[in-house]
Amino acid sequence: MRERIKKIFENLEEGVDIILISTGMSGDKTFFYITGVTEGLFENSIAIAYPSGDYEIICPKLEEGIANASVFQDVNERNRLIKEKVSGEKIGVNGDKLTYKEYRNLKKLFPKAKFFDVWEAIAKARLIKDKEEIKNIKKACNISASIAERLYSLFDSNIRECDVKAEINYMMEKENASPAFDTIVAFGKNSARPHHKSVKKKFVMPVLCDFGAAYKNYCSDVTRTFVSKKQREVYDVVKEGKFIALDMMGEGVKAGDVAKSVNEFFIKKGFKKMIHSLGHSLGLSPHDGFSINEKNDEIMKENMILAVEPAIYLKNFGIRIEDDVLVKKNGVEVLTK
Amino acid sequence: MRERIKKIFENLEEGVDIILISTGMSGDKTFFYITGVTEGLFENSIAIAYPSGDYEIICPKLEEGIANASVFQDVNERNRLIKEKVSGEKIGVNGDKLTYKEYRNLKKLFPKAKFFDVWEAIAKARLIKDKEEIKNIKKACNISASIAERLYSLFDSNIRECDVKAEINYMMEKENASPAFDTIVAFGKNSARPHHKSVKKKFVMPVLCDFGAAYKNYCSDVTRTFVSKKQREVYDVVKEGKFIALDMMGEGVKAGDVAKSVNEFFIKKGFKKMIHSLGHSLGLSPHDGFSINEKNDEIMKENMILAVEPAIYLKNFGIRIEDDVLVKKNGVEVLTK
Repeated sequence: MRERIKKIFENLEEGVDIILISTGMSGDKTFFYITGVTEGLFENSIAIAYPSGDYEIICPKLEEGIANASVFQDVNERNRLIKEKVSGEKIGVNGDKLTYKEYRNLKKLFPKAKFFDVWEAIAKARLIKDKEEIKNIKKACNISASIAERLYSLFDSNIRECDVKAEINYMMEKENASPAFDTIVAFGKNSARPHHKSVKKKFVMPVLCDFGAAYKNYCSDVTRTFVSKKQREVYDVVKEGKFIALDMMGEGVKAGDVAKSVNEFFIKKGFKKMIHSLGHSLGLSPHDGFSINEKNDEIMKENMILAVEPAIYLKNFGIRIEDDVLVKKNGVEVLTK
Repeated sequence: MRERIKKIFENLEEGVDIILISTGMSGDKTFFYITGVTEGLFENSIAIAYPSGDYEIICPKLEEGIANASVFQDVNERNRLIKEKVSGEKIGVNGDKLTYKEYRNLKKLFPKAKFFDVWEAIAKARLIKDKEEIKNIKKACNISASIAERLYSLFDSNIRECDVKAEINYMMEKENASPAFDTIVAFGKNSARPHHKSVKKKFVMPVLCDFGAAYKNYCSDVTRTFVSKKQREVYDVVKEGKFIALDMMGEGVKAGDVAKSVNEFFIKKGFKKMIHSLGHSLGLSPHDGFSINEKNDEIMKENMILAVEPAIYLKNFGIRIEDDVLVKKNGVEVLTK
């Protein structure tokens, strides 16, 4: 993971002596990025990264054996280990995940140190995937895509939202992958709400399924919507929106321009601008880095992996189609078909 | 949710004008505690609580319609709404979840305000469950307990860890509940690792299953271990450890004393002290509040809900048994049997 760590340090505008990742109870996937660990929860754990590319791990005794780490059994031992391992006056932290409470704890442990929020350098490094990461995301995408193909065969007039959700998650687990986020299955009117939580609702079109697999901590993110004849017209507009996006994307393209083009197309067709972004970077987290929205000046680069999810939400139903792509020099490779 | 908010303000040693809960991308369940909302993700959302018990919500447009809220479409609108809604010079925040980055954002928005980390007052309020909360947790516990009873019937010599995990999660989803955390299924040697991630391992005893259901955001947390004849002796020690704990527990009992008694019993029987705590408070999060460990002076109170999980880990296998209990004036009510 030497190269990943070096990449983060290279992205820094102001030098720091070390970078300290503290996962807390909510987790910080940067821990896995830096250490390459693919197992365990590593709550309340610490990864310390050095400019040389080296790293050290401090973790609770119950994670012992997974990685080469210094283990602690209580909070005093934890703090003692942190004090022992960390030297330097400039400490970089990931403000995007570090809790305010842990920041105050670190301030107390190192009263003379200066803390720098290096979240941007971390996010920037994580945006460009290396070979190992691409391999894992491709596997996660394959799992989702193969499930997507089997969805239609599940439907019958007695099936409820939560049943479809159960089937999707079951298919993932049978492949030894976990849902990357809470699977969304929305029937009829519920599909108009992007983050609908599945209920015991009876079958009615459209059927929107948004799910992703996590494989070795790496995520895919796919949405399929099945429509009635009447809803087909809107579906086709969303689908065309997706192709407009995919055709534009590739190295050197500005994310905001792609979002603008799709929104303009939707408006031209008599619909509204999207109420969420057109897509997002994908990796150790389902939302891993930037959003593809009109205000984003980010330039796409080779080996970024992006989820593209154009959608139209009407009063009575919503349509969303989502695929994951690998950015190439000339265009994109769709990973979820 | 007026009473819940008032309870938090009453727990404060130093008064604050408002409490601001910012969920970020990792979430802060306190948002659901304060607002009573049971749907939606509410990423990057804000709940503002007032000493009167009133609250306001600021959330992304894509959560619109679930709660009475002021919605935003981008980060500038979000910051503008926060500035508009928040007044006062003393702002309480939940340092346990608030990110360092968001803290810095708030500092910039309110350069004259003083920030107070009120995580303890929040955690203390959330420890004692109200009627609605107990009802939801009981439902979550019932779902888990009924799945626990069906586990044994799943086993055959061809089943893999990930298959059992798939079945457990499937049964939860069919009840319209989600896994409260990543379900652990560990066969044989893997059971010696408390946070083992299921793999395609072939069936061998013991079989350890640790899972919980989330129902309306409220969690249960149950572990069952199935053993061979040879492993029965160790199993019985863990089981006796559980009964020692349950017999001691009730209003007025010190958490640390219970952990000590179980550890002493394990040592007396020739085993080691536990490598994780004996249990933990349960609620909107699977670990919601304190841990039951030897160093914890917390006194148990009526209407706390606690998970009790004695365990012995040997070199070649581990045994853990976990049940959830409601603390009563005189003892506890087991919710997962």
